[in-house]
Amino acid sequence: MSAPDKELRVSLALTMGDPAGVGPELALQAWRDRNGENIPAFALYADVELMRELAGALGLDAAKDIVPVANASAAATVFADALPVVPIPLAAPRLAGTPDVANGPATILSINRAVADIAAGHAAAIVTNPIAKAVLYDAGFAHPGHTEYLGTLAQEFWPAEPAEPVMMIAAPGLRVVPVTIHVPLKDVPALLTTDLIVRCGRIVHSALKRDFGIARPRIVVAGLNPHAGENGALGSEDEEIVRPAIVQLRAEGIDATGPFSADTLFHQAVRKTYDAALTMYHDQGLIPIKTLAFDEGVNVTLGLPFVRTSPDHGTAFVIAGKGIASATSLIAALKLAAEMVARRATVLP
Amino acid sequence: MSAPDKELRVSLALTMGDPAGVGPELALQAWRDRNGENIPAFALYADVELMRELAGALGLDAAKDIVPVANASAAATVFADALPVVPIPLAAPRLAGTPDVANGPATILSINRAVADIAAGHAAAIVTNPIAKAVLYDAGFAHPGHTEYLGTLAQEFWPAEPAEPVMMIAAPGLRVVPVTIHVPLKDVPALLTTDLIVRCGRIVHSALKRDFGIARPRIVVAGLNPHAGENGALGSEDEEIVRPAIVQLRAEGIDATGPFSADTLFHQAVRKTYDAALTMYHDQGLIPIKTLAFDEGVNVTLGLPFVRTSPDHGTAFVIAGKGIASATSLIAALKLAAEMVARRATVLP
Repeated sequence: MSAPDKELRVSLALTMGDPAGVGPELALQAWRDRNGENIPAFALYADVELMRELAGALGLDAAKDIVPVANASAAATVFADALPVVPIPLAAPRLAGTPDVANGPATILSINRAVADIAAGHAAAIVTNPIAKAVLYDAGFAHPGHTEYLGTLAQEFWPAEPAEPVMMIAAPGLRVVPVTIHVPLKDVPALLTTDLIVRCGRIVHSALKRDFGIARPRIVVAGLNPHAGENGALGSEDEEIVRPAIVQLRAEGIDATGPFSADTLFHQAVRKTYDAALTMYHDQGLIPIKTLAFDEGVNVTLGLPFVRTSPDHGTAFVIAGKGIASATSLIAALKLAAEMVARRATVLP
Repeated sequence: MSAPDKELRVSLALTMGDPAGVGPELALQAWRDRNGENIPAFALYADVELMRELAGALGLDAAKDIVPVANASAAATVFADALPVVPIPLAAPRLAGTPDVANGPATILSINRAVADIAAGHAAAIVTNPIAKAVLYDAGFAHPGHTEYLGTLAQEFWPAEPAEPVMMIAAPGLRVVPVTIHVPLKDVPALLTTDLIVRCGRIVHSALKRDFGIARPRIVVAGLNPHAGENGALGSEDEEIVRPAIVQLRAEGIDATGPFSADTLFHQAVRKTYDAALTMYHDQGLIPIKTLAFDEGVNVTLGLPFVRTSPDHGTAFVIAGKGIASATSLIAALKLAAEMVARRATVLP
């Protein structure tokens, strides 16, 4: 078991994302900078010809630097000399910045293959490049987003294991978890339940221990309303929904505190006092982390049977193919995935 | 007119705030640091005995350093040698950290007198120390908050002038304006109207020119929903309510742009591109500014016939009387008020 186990710790499956976006070029940049940045080995699940074309444009050796592989298990040995690519052929030529519905199936296949390879023991974790939901919807994709789709795949491949995807954005010095995510703001109060917050808190607690190596995680919980409702004067949810969730989590031995006024929860001095902040909706969590760490944030999906990270940006079609996109977030996502896999390996039997 | 006009530019009226909070001690600290910090002259509207007691505790000369004055017009000449105090007697002894409903009327009278003195030409602007709304409610105060109360006073004293208070938090490098403020989050979508955003945008535009000296103000507008609604997929308000407001403002010659995804609006590189950000609700605006500038933010009320600023913190009862509260925000509020008065004086006839 020792050889495959060693590979498991270091070979990541990186998806192509929307081929018209910045994903493929960033993958290539990350591979090019592998030594200086000490980037963990990964295989890219993408179109081989596209990657050779991009390699040429980047001044690399298109033939020598791109090596097709069967799956990510070969990445660890190939990676030092070439970018290992698991072939996912595109249906239509890729035009940078102009997404093509015809390539939607390849984008989805890249995700499917990466997850299947984790299930087969060929890859240690999945790192996903950004997709364009609208393009995939036109191609028949029927999931609210990337994260939810991975939850569905998890249930297919690991039917016996729980899969409740929870999104965390992790940056140096701050981790935030929006309890509700991509929903209209007006729907947030009705979607927010004590049970939802409790389930989310448990998953975050467990992940902070297992994947982030924090022995006694400290979780703070933001209030839904201004000033956390000011004792009910500015909304009842913080007392009726949020506080009971905190009471329940504490009863389970989880160090959860709050509800706190969200506006005073993210300053430097306060950030030091906790390991993750549960926020009640998208902007409440993503505003502080993107205000502080625009390039360094990593999107992490907790609550799945496998490790998944993602750069915290979109397809960036407007700059795709121009060589000006920054691989900072992708590189952070690759490194974090490898760290999480290593920590999980030391905890799991 | 030249002598009183000159005084008008430099004499500010500083209210006591809740006497059990940190307001009085911060006022005294600000006066003590007047030279090093180059603090504009102000008169404090507060209990003279309380201030003498605090002066003694701070190692100042209780008799010599606290000088009762009739109103703020004397502040400019007295301020160099003593803290000018317009007497507002307390009804009950002040116990630091323990608010007393009996002193609610004095807290309110301090505000009333300060505004009356502006109306009478004795003070150039009002800077308010924090109040505790719950205490004032128990004392019969029936206004949603400080800002709204100042709007009511403005209508009483300047019945012919428009008074629509708009809250701005200003810090070095960022100014935010929440269009809705102290309301439950669930009420925000229904309260948000195109007309409200337009009125708010006009007031902000006008204030940026008149009070902040910005010739061509650039205003960005945040979307209500995650990703500014993602073309309607995540809520309809951004297209149906927010965008028409921006169109209207632009038709009036105001440089308003958006709606932008709120989470990507506050990073350093983006902040440089605008002079103020209109946000749709409290936390959307206050999270980024308090994340970045916890101590330096100043609460400014726009849309009134007079200049009003306030430190961006509360009564801080838990640390009141301990000498550990920071006067940074109050000092910033005093300086900003003086700057706004000076700019307004050069613009007004």
